[in-house]
Amino acid sequence: MNDNDKNKKAIVLFSGGLDSTTVLKIALDEGFEPIPITFFYNQRHATEIEHAKNIINFFGLKKHIIVNLDFNVIKGSALTDKNISVPKNRIKTERTSDTGKTAEKNDIPATYVPARNTIFLSYTLAAAEVEKASDIFIGANYIDYSGYPDCRPEYLASFENMANLATKAGVTGEISFKINAPLLMLTKKDIVLKAVEIGAPLNLTHSCYDPIDGLACGVCDSCILRKRGFEEAGINDPTQYFKSKT
Amino acid sequence: MNDNDKNKKAIVLFSGGLDSTTVLKIALDEGFEPIPITFFYNQRHATEIEHAKNIINFFGLKKHIIVNLDFNVIKGSALTDKNISVPKNRIKTERTSDTGKTAEKNDIPATYVPARNTIFLSYTLAAAEVEKASDIFIGANYIDYSGYPDCRPEYLASFENMANLATKAGVTGEISFKINAPLLMLTKKDIVLKAVEIGAPLNLTHSCYDPIDGLACGVCDSCILRKRGFEEAGINDPTQYFKSKT
Repeated sequence: MNDNDKNKKAIVLFSGGLDSTTVLKIALDEGFEPIPITFFYNQRHATEIEHAKNIINFFGLKKHIIVNLDFNVIKGSALTDKNISVPKNRIKTERTSDTGKTAEKNDIPATYVPARNTIFLSYTLAAAEVEKASDIFIGANYIDYSGYPDCRPEYLASFENMANLATKAGVTGEISFKINAPLLMLTKKDIVLKAVEIGAPLNLTHSCYDPIDGLACGVCDSCILRKRGFEEAGINDPTQYFKSKT
Repeated sequence: MNDNDKNKKAIVLFSGGLDSTTVLKIALDEGFEPIPITFFYNQRHATEIEHAKNIINFFGLKKHIIVNLDFNVIKGSALTDKNISVPKNRIKTERTSDTGKTAEKNDIPATYVPARNTIFLSYTLAAAEVEKASDIFIGANYIDYSGYPDCRPEYLASFENMANLATKAGVTGEISFKINAPLLMLTKKDIVLKAVEIGAPLNLTHSCYDPIDGLACGVCDSCILRKRGFEEAGINDPTQYFKSKT
């Protein structure tokens, strides 16, 4: 970003987790005026809103876009369908290769939600056009991801291309929309180190797919990837896990 | 479509209007098992659901996906923001050229909703993956459209490309998603003639952006394009318009 871009608005997909909190701080550090957008669906409301709001207060941001999604249409995922369990201990805690990629790479898990990032990004694009924000930030992660097709670089490039054909601002040339995914090629270890380096409030973040009594379960894919990232980075994970009772 | 495709499922974007009702009949006639998906937002609920349900009953379809959209995020459009009026008499009733394109082509109107078709198609893509439907049908119309960028062929092609990168079924090769827009290059006149030819129930359709006491206003872009289409086709428009009191 050059100096002319200072104080440009950016819409940041923000769940209150490790990745999106780090991305929010990156957008701030790059001089953007970030507007977080948070999506809620099903019964995961209260805890996540609270975590997200604490982080937004930490950064002193005034605007927060909250979108309530009707995901009743999307059955067949452990994250949207009560009848399907969130997989536990699916990912090995220790890495099985040193290629930087995890062994479970090609296995798309039960937590896959059809077209989730596409729905999220579509709303974000709408918000970006309304706010006249050229930049969209997303914490998508290709290296240590959980096998989701909509976290791959070719998908994000394709969405960006479509976004500029879809919108009045894109078509008239008023705005050239850009999808920024600064964590795309980082391991979880690198994300943790990055978060510590730039002062993202890790103690306020929340990553669990399936919290128990408000505590992270410790055994879903998201918890395991997070724990492994902190361990490999040599950083203490401030998360209170239900099972480990730390 | 070849014979092997008989009884394949298709998700059809369906508002209960002239275009989407014609598209629904086209999908049926092509041998698809169509599943209509209808999006509701703001206060336009009751009337539109009723119209849509009457048409679905007419066709004897059993499944209807209804998605309630949170469009509070999308301000700045006459269709989502109560503070902005739906433009009246913006489009001339008579065509100003015989090129097949309308004079208002490049003027994107106040009824433009940022990223609307992208949000609609994203949900539709999710539904298609859940239902294992390869085909998506949309009544987008390029010739006599109202100036929306997300009704253009290059946009739809770009969305289709993105859709196959976004999804588990697309990436694994289980499904190749296809966006069908059979009205894309037809004028409204041609759409009316097509609807009559194939027996789409025009008397049950509803096209108005801004109904008054349940009757079509007659002066919004959607009403004017519809009226002109019927006039040019030489077909009686069964719509009850508020102003003309027919």
